[in-house]
Amino acid sequence: MRRAAEFVADSLRAAGLENVELIETEGHPLVYADWMHAPGKPTVLCYGHYDVQPPDPLDLWKTPPFEPTIRDGNLFARGSADDKGQMYIHVKAVEALMRTSGSLPVNVKFLVEGEEEIGGKSVAAYVAAHAAKLKADVALVSDTAMYAPGLPTLCVGLRGLVYTEVAMKGASRDLHSGLYGGAAPNPVFALIELLSQAKDAGGRILIPGFYDDVEDAGEVELESWKSLPFNEADFLNKEVGALALTGESEYSVLERVWSRPTLEVHGIAGGFTGAGAKTVIPAEATAKVSFRLAPNQDPDRIVASFRDFVAERTPAGCAAEMRVLSAGPACMVNPDHPAIRVAASAFEETFERETVFVRSGGSIPIVGDFATHLGIPTILMGFGLPDDGLHSPNEKFAVENFYKGIHTVAHFLEKYGEAS
Amino acid sequence: MRRAAEFVADSLRAAGLENVELIETEGHPLVYADWMHAPGKPTVLCYGHYDVQPPDPLDLWKTPPFEPTIRDGNLFARGSADDKGQMYIHVKAVEALMRTSGSLPVNVKFLVEGEEEIGGKSVAAYVAAHAAKLKADVALVSDTAMYAPGLPTLCVGLRGLVYTEVAMKGASRDLHSGLYGGAAPNPVFALIELLSQAKDAGGRILIPGFYDDVEDAGEVELESWKSLPFNEADFLNKEVGALALTGESEYSVLERVWSRPTLEVHGIAGGFTGAGAKTVIPAEATAKVSFRLAPNQDPDRIVASFRDFVAERTPAGCAAEMRVLSAGPACMVNPDHPAIRVAASAFEETFERETVFVRSGGSIPIVGDFATHLGIPTILMGFGLPDDGLHSPNEKFAVENFYKGIHTVAHFLEKYGEAS
Repeated sequence: MRRAAEFVADSLRAAGLENVELIETEGHPLVYADWMHAPGKPTVLCYGHYDVQPPDPLDLWKTPPFEPTIRDGNLFARGSADDKGQMYIHVKAVEALMRTSGSLPVNVKFLVEGEEEIGGKSVAAYVAAHAAKLKADVALVSDTAMYAPGLPTLCVGLRGLVYTEVAMKGASRDLHSGLYGGAAPNPVFALIELLSQAKDAGGRILIPGFYDDVEDAGEVELESWKSLPFNEADFLNKEVGALALTGESEYSVLERVWSRPTLEVHGIAGGFTGAGAKTVIPAEATAKVSFRLAPNQDPDRIVASFRDFVAERTPAGCAAEMRVLSAGPACMVNPDHPAIRVAASAFEETFERETVFVRSGGSIPIVGDFATHLGIPTILMGFGLPDDGLHSPNEKFAVENFYKGIHTVAHFLEKYGEAS
Repeated sequence: MRRAAEFVADSLRAAGLENVELIETEGHPLVYADWMHAPGKPTVLCYGHYDVQPPDPLDLWKTPPFEPTIRDGNLFARGSADDKGQMYIHVKAVEALMRTSGSLPVNVKFLVEGEEEIGGKSVAAYVAAHAAKLKADVALVSDTAMYAPGLPTLCVGLRGLVYTEVAMKGASRDLHSGLYGGAAPNPVFALIELLSQAKDAGGRILIPGFYDDVEDAGEVELESWKSLPFNEADFLNKEVGALALTGESEYSVLERVWSRPTLEVHGIAGGFTGAGAKTVIPAEATAKVSFRLAPNQDPDRIVASFRDFVAERTPAGCAAEMRVLSAGPACMVNPDHPAIRVAASAFEETFERETVFVRSGGSIPIVGDFATHLGIPTILMGFGLPDDGLHSPNEKFAVENFYKGIHTVAHFLEKYGEAS
């Protein structure tokens, strides 16, 4: 992690940024840098992250996750798209401008973190405590995807995320199911019983009060989504690769993945899971349970509702413990903001197609932190593609998008400087 | 393993048994011996096993697991009770009779295996293929425990066991829950949904037809269980160590663990289960699911019902596969069988207390093999105690029970010969 942070710092220094520093945290270091010699011009805060998801399962990678390999115009590596490759676009855009004109058209600050994939605690605390140092007019984040190859895309909405872990305990030790089965509590089954009550077969979450504050997408936005080149059969067969799509059938697929709240179990573990048969009643089991939040849902309220739900529905004989690993709200950006308009236009000129406004069902907590503590909107200008395989084996990033991304960001900074 | 098998063979030879042989198998050798010079008298087939469970964790043993040590009237060693010590009781009983009278009161065959703790595949195949050689009137197995110290106990019922593995598949790869959550199938949740429908909160199994053939314990047997020194609070607090007992509250605890069928999930695995948060929708999840069977339930029919249940209830978007790892029926011995009556009486005379008839919720597959292939009942005459710590560190066997066991078995053979 430290080598990655130092690589970022060195790259920023080489690009011509100033005041480059590694900021120590309780976790992984933040990297800060700035260039503030454009008086009267706005300040752009470039954010990215140098940490990545674990590469497991390793045996599914065609080439090793940490040996970047180009095949068919794509760079295959863990973090190529999420977010090392995209973050590096900002560095290279600034470097290009510095090398060609010796200065930048706007003031620029960089803040690059190393804990995005594990909750972003350190950067959140730093942003909250250093609003003056980070003061800017707009934040620029490249950590999302274009809607389709060649289609300039700005993301104006993100779902929130509450991520929890539920541990269920039964007997004080593993028991023999022949001797105790039928009378001893089974925490694996207790967890199954509990979680099965949280969502119905139609995808509706059954936790009391869960939908109270949900703000659904408005008619204008829904209408614009209809013009997107979305093909449900392709989404199912080429992206998801399952027998059928699931979830709330009364909402369109884009609403389900972009604007509706969800409950997912990301992992579950307990008891004997090796080859063959072991007749054990395990002493405990755990599950990772998350909620994606719609705009206007309060993460603290969702946490409280789920905590009550777990406490009330824990099956007899077992004890459940719920831990919150992260909690952040949804974030919306106004597409009429001047910086967003300039970004849309720069994007359009590079890719020679009209920019579309979409949402992402993912969560980028930093966007909420920038809104709350710095009072600024965030331009989510992503150059990834829908099939990049983020968090999966064989993650890739299109080499063409890397270069066009550098062009687009540099162009945005120029146009934003001119417009101000 | 071979040294243990040879030790058994040598001991049988020294005891006066004839035709002693090591029978090679695909696994560990079987040991066979017989003494067939009591014409007109019945034949008793003595079964035991010389293999033991691994001794780990070694650091919890007070004295080394393979250096038998006597403390406070107990012999501490791996296998002292399960089953080397108990199997050796049969050898010494026969030796005692041979030394004192030069012959045996009945015909005797020995079959001692070395794979009991790993599935008993070789002995099962051997019994199926050599019914004529193993022909006997009754089998004698000492591999169970007395209900309480000093209380002669015959086990007359064992539950059956169907052990399966259910694999649930969703998308063709792990997906990012931000991008696909709300529309993509989640096999972890699908497995939760499926299994939650298989058993209700009251412990009742909801698979159609599951209880059709269940034969519950009769009134006489239930009445006799009431006389056992069973204390529910001790069972909960000292043995199970959980907040409460669970299961079918309309049945007594002993019925729940001895005679009622069960569904247990022994293990479940899927997705991300490491420390921290990973927002993945995993591509698959698996669970180990078993059923303990009551007398008269047909394992094949239970397998078929569960297979149908899985096929019908698999949630949309997912595909489930059910594999059967083992399937065996419950085994009951008629307590009025002449050999059982003689065994009860011999037990009673040695320990000077009335013999109780109990069941065990576990499964001893060899008992089913003897019933199926040899058509004979099995006397489960165990001399262990409930706190012997089978499969655990500091396994022990009461020295008094070893000597009284020899006396009881010899006495049983004498009385069985006289009664015939």
